[in-house]
Amino acid sequence: MVNKQSIGVGLLGLGVVGGGVAGVLAGRAKALSEQVGCPLILRKVKVMESDLSRPQVKELGAQLFTTDDEEFFTQPDIDIVVEAIGGEEPALDYLKRALAGGRHVVTSNKEVIAKHGAELFTLAQEHGVGLHYEASVGGGIPLISPFQQDLVANKISGIYGIINGTTNYILTRMAGEGIDFPSALKSAQELGYAEADPKNDIEGIDSTYKLAILASLAFHLQVRPQDIHCEGISRLSSRDFKYARELGYAIKLLSIAKEKDSRIEVRVHPVFIPENSLLAEVDGVYNAILVEGDLVGKVLFYGEGAGASATSSAVVADVVSAARDIVIGSGTRANWRLEPGKSIRPMAELETGYYLRLNAADQPGVLAKVSRVLGDHRISIASVIQKAVDPVAQTAEIVIMTHPAKEAEMQKALKELDKMDVVKEIENFIRVEE
Amino acid sequence: MVNKQSIGVGLLGLGVVGGGVAGVLAGRAKALSEQVGCPLILRKVKVMESDLSRPQVKELGAQLFTTDDEEFFTQPDIDIVVEAIGGEEPALDYLKRALAGGRHVVTSNKEVIAKHGAELFTLAQEHGVGLHYEASVGGGIPLISPFQQDLVANKISGIYGIINGTTNYILTRMAGEGIDFPSALKSAQELGYAEADPKNDIEGIDSTYKLAILASLAFHLQVRPQDIHCEGISRLSSRDFKYARELGYAIKLLSIAKEKDSRIEVRVHPVFIPENSLLAEVDGVYNAILVEGDLVGKVLFYGEGAGASATSSAVVADVVSAARDIVIGSGTRANWRLEPGKSIRPMAELETGYYLRLNAADQPGVLAKVSRVLGDHRISIASVIQKAVDPVAQTAEIVIMTHPAKEAEMQKALKELDKMDVVKEIENFIRVEE
Repeated sequence: MVNKQSIGVGLLGLGVVGGGVAGVLAGRAKALSEQVGCPLILRKVKVMESDLSRPQVKELGAQLFTTDDEEFFTQPDIDIVVEAIGGEEPALDYLKRALAGGRHVVTSNKEVIAKHGAELFTLAQEHGVGLHYEASVGGGIPLISPFQQDLVANKISGIYGIINGTTNYILTRMAGEGIDFPSALKSAQELGYAEADPKNDIEGIDSTYKLAILASLAFHLQVRPQDIHCEGISRLSSRDFKYARELGYAIKLLSIAKEKDSRIEVRVHPVFIPENSLLAEVDGVYNAILVEGDLVGKVLFYGEGAGASATSSAVVADVVSAARDIVIGSGTRANWRLEPGKSIRPMAELETGYYLRLNAADQPGVLAKVSRVLGDHRISIASVIQKAVDPVAQTAEIVIMTHPAKEAEMQKALKELDKMDVVKEIENFIRVEE
Repeated sequence: MVNKQSIGVGLLGLGVVGGGVAGVLAGRAKALSEQVGCPLILRKVKVMESDLSRPQVKELGAQLFTTDDEEFFTQPDIDIVVEAIGGEEPALDYLKRALAGGRHVVTSNKEVIAKHGAELFTLAQEHGVGLHYEASVGGGIPLISPFQQDLVANKISGIYGIINGTTNYILTRMAGEGIDFPSALKSAQELGYAEADPKNDIEGIDSTYKLAILASLAFHLQVRPQDIHCEGISRLSSRDFKYARELGYAIKLLSIAKEKDSRIEVRVHPVFIPENSLLAEVDGVYNAILVEGDLVGKVLFYGEGAGASATSSAVVADVVSAARDIVIGSGTRANWRLEPGKSIRPMAELETGYYLRLNAADQPGVLAKVSRVLGDHRISIASVIQKAVDPVAQTAEIVIMTHPAKEAEMQKALKELDKMDVVKEIENFIRVEE
């Protein structure tokens, strides 16, 4: 036991997360001090010039704040640095500086951990300090600590996550109201659930950061965001939801990681999932992550995936955890264990079912021609819906559900279908996860 | 850092859980040793005479086993004792002996922790060792560690759990097939989901142990099983499920703990919950626990609540956690933090809605008389279903849903209703949780 009178905390950033964390540390000081064994004291907050006018600065006392990096990093008695800036730079630089200075670090920064985790964990190890990042995925839902602690006895076989609240909100609106993507996005933006520039969320990029973190932890292989096959939700239309419902499915943007024979499959894209599955029931901005382990079976974690309060819950829990480690005199814990012999499985080797929606000429023999192309690539059809849609243009919509087939073959088939005269357009193609 | 060559484990019991744990420790030795930093070695297993014929004894080597308490407790080099016997005695005695001997303890024993947790935690603290009990509630679902770690920054306001798989299986069968309790129980027994003597499960006793543990952790008050109002599921009939469905509800055995103004409400009983709520979707032997915190909002944990594998997942995770603490040289962690000024709220003060099913005379004015009794106790009716059921006996079934009312008043009203000539029988009365 280290006889500490108090534990000093330094905070980088006073935005949504930083402001929330500062509020919890100040407002809940007594309970937190009982959890830790000594007081947690916020000693310095590094902010931007524009933050200095925030009411919280006045509340907490102006002397606590600085806009100067040097002043922050030379402040004595800071044991734990909380980074709540987000984005790659200057956050990465700050994290390295804090770790190299022997400070324990708590961060909610998914992008930095996903892209630079390996380097940062090595640095933490070298300096005998902890690097905590529970808030980087799933807001306040415990997700990192289950992998580091509760599920360690398991061989994890799969992770299936709804880990982006913005896209899940948009998909929920599209499914519930039959509206198209642009209106659902507009509504999400008006409600503050989507940003003015929504690219990171709707194109799945945010999800790749989070999946990279979870998959690295679960499968003991360094998974980088660029290793993950990524497709967003912008090409989904109300017709896809209509057919999904007819066929007994929901459409969700899933982040999937699976291991088979030491090869890890990692992908983020819209999927058809059975409408009675647990993940299909996850609506609105909520997040849920289903984990499959050989001992534990299926476990699901569900909750708010973002927001100032939920994220503060995870950040402050990490601060308490780091502080307890300091009090008991323990340094870093091994929490980024890599196993040799593992590799990423190329997307071309994926085997799954597919939903295919084509706009085709409404004439006899079209379905036979389409089936032949699929058959040539060993893709067998499970069910077909064919509907005349435009009597003037004489086009029909053909919806095909396939049995599991190879992704590489499906991609070849799609190219061939695209070249066929009778196929006017491949309107969508969505993978099925049973 | 303590330079340990290996960590010794002693195991008490070789039943479902013990056998599972022994299997995982042996079968996954390499991965576990990487997690811990040195090998975890099973050094002695205390079994009953009758266990010696089990195939596992031969597999692991007969010299590892003993039927003698003295031999087990004097075995050198045991750092961690795993108790997998279950029941109150001799498990309690063994746990005390292990803790007093300076061994870290891991247990899956909900009864001992619920009844004797306070004493055992004190003993662990005195001897500088850890007492780990993740497997005591919810099988492999992380539930203890979230309260000890991930949710520490929160003020918890409520816990709502389906924490007994046997009863949830029975209720799922009753809801799905319209069968009555005795047939559903029989079927659960045939499938091994219910014991030959099912009392502990179906009367809610098992749930009170688990709720006592969760509520103590969440609300920092020692909640004992006898503090918990407990009703089982045996008085539910297929008619209750029929009406529940008509009214838009599911029936679940919920374990509920809520805090309001430092008073903790703890109860286990069947409830009507809205059919589209998350907990209503939890079917079969699965468990789910919904936790409400002021920062995190609602988080839900779902998975298999029992079974050799799932329970081993939690026990072995606790062993790894204890072993890491030994390796880093840390002793016990404060994990049973009590706050002064808290108390149990008497059941009489509960305010909730009620479902009431009466068998009454099928004659004019009966409903008016029943309403008057309820009104006298300030219980207002939200909706009524009245159906003639027996033209010969001239009886009708009256189903009443009330607005939230005081439990004490409802109990008085039930007594008065019971005495009325026109009321043949109060067939059931179930609380509603919106």
